[in-house]
Amino acid sequence: MATSNGIEQLQKGCYHEWMSLQAKRIVDLKEALTTKDDRKLGELVGEIVDEFQKYTKKRSELSDRSCSSYFAPSWNSSLENSLLWMGGCRPSSFIRVIYATCGSQAETQLSQYLLKIDENIHENHGDGSLSDLTSVQLGQINELHMKVIEKEDKLSKKAANLQEDVADMPIAVTAYATDLVEAGVAVENVLDKHEECLGVLMAEADKLRVETLKKIVEVMTPVQAAEFLLAGKRLHVSLHEWGRVREERRFGCAHVDHAAAARS
Amino acid sequence: MATSNGIEQLQKGCYHEWMSLQAKRIVDLKEALTTKDDRKLGELVGEIVDEFQKYTKKRSELSDRSCSSYFAPSWNSSLENSLLWMGGCRPSSFIRVIYATCGSQAETQLSQYLLKIDENIHENHGDGSLSDLTSVQLGQINELHMKVIEKEDKLSKKAANLQEDVADMPIAVTAYATDLVEAGVAVENVLDKHEECLGVLMAEADKLRVETLKKIVEVMTPVQAAEFLLAGKRLHVSLHEWGRVREERRFGCAHVDHAAAARS
Repeated sequence: MATSNGIEQLQKGCYHEWMSLQAKRIVDLKEALTTKDDRKLGELVGEIVDEFQKYTKKRSELSDRSCSSYFAPSWNSSLENSLLWMGGCRPSSFIRVIYATCGSQAETQLSQYLLKIDENIHENHGDGSLSDLTSVQLGQINELHMKVIEKEDKLSKKAANLQEDVADMPIAVTAYATDLVEAGVAVENVLDKHEECLGVLMAEADKLRVETLKKIVEVMTPVQAAEFLLAGKRLHVSLHEWGRVREERRFGCAHVDHAAAARS
Repeated sequence: MATSNGIEQLQKGCYHEWMSLQAKRIVDLKEALTTKDDRKLGELVGEIVDEFQKYTKKRSELSDRSCSSYFAPSWNSSLENSLLWMGGCRPSSFIRVIYATCGSQAETQLSQYLLKIDENIHENHGDGSLSDLTSVQLGQINELHMKVIEKEDKLSKKAANLQEDVADMPIAVTAYATDLVEAGVAVENVLDKHEECLGVLMAEADKLRVETLKKIVEVMTPVQAAEFLLAGKRLHVSLHEWGRVREERRFGCAHVDHAAAARS
């Protein structure tokens, strides 16, 4: 169990390690996709899913009594934090990434075909990439989407109850009873319990994220799975960067240094 | 319309002004409650509700294309941000504050009566304070609670859709298509649109917060309304302070300065 002293530093370190790994995996996926070696691609996809599971385990260990940091991390831009759901992305957005990417690939292939830009279009089409998801695969993914949204809604409801509970006794009563804004043991215990519950929620949400990822990958060919992971990782890294740049603009000149310091 | 240059500074200034007013209003409410002057209490309650409405209007004006800051403000501790719903508290938590406060007052009165600590207990009981909510009032508040939760759920669903949409075209496709993590015009437009939608959501949530506050106050006597507002404001101020202290502990020694600077 981590002590609460400097725990945010450990959480931040864990996150930065994870983001470096993302950058490396983007390169690995691109390289592997050029080989079109199904065995190699399958192995890489398996490793990446395992890594994600390990990451969720690690941050769960770091969330003990300090989980609220994960619900709006200081290392994220406010854009990213506004997209956060239970300390991470919505599992349903994995599926939106599939739809967006496969739709755009199909569009590109069609326009290439129509404009006769790419003579190899017939060869490319049918190589098992995301645009070639079969109707059976799309059906399975759509079914998964519905189930995931249902599970997300259940977790959101739990989070709503948790938020409401804070306005309950003894918190509200302690606040009401005195002008001294010292928390006291009773309140500290309730706040510790609140963070513990947040930790349980995040772990459940992470479980749903990992499960969804695994089920998507199971439905796909190795090439499709690798393309999907590449799309997801690039989206994650891009949103982090775009948010950072927008925030720098928003802070204005006077605050660029502070913004940079807060992220360092 | 505010420019995006330094907008976060203006938002932060608006928030600090609001928090100073809360501290002042806590004193005003306490003073007015000792007078038991219904006319005076009624006026003060009216002013406070108006002030809240004006505050929501002001921050709505400051949220143009920069609303994501309000969904996890840098001026809040992570504890407070973990309790945030659409840039503020859940309207349903207003009602939880009523239940908690009136329950505790009734308990105190009962134990004072049983222990004969307070000889004036019979006089106090029935003075129209929160513990004296009639069954009709409690029925109205309970009905309001149900309606508010329903409306909250609808807004939460809208926010969920908004979050999923970001994983859609052209964002996902731009991210997928290139290693350059420059946003480009298409992406910037979508992100601006996203922040605009967040602004609309926050305005709808603020409308629900104001409406809920007004309906609660309508159901109550001036004394009850003043006690309720006092409880709510003290809870808000206390959570801000408790979160700050917990965060200082969490950042650890090395980060106390940064944490303080981020809040200054």
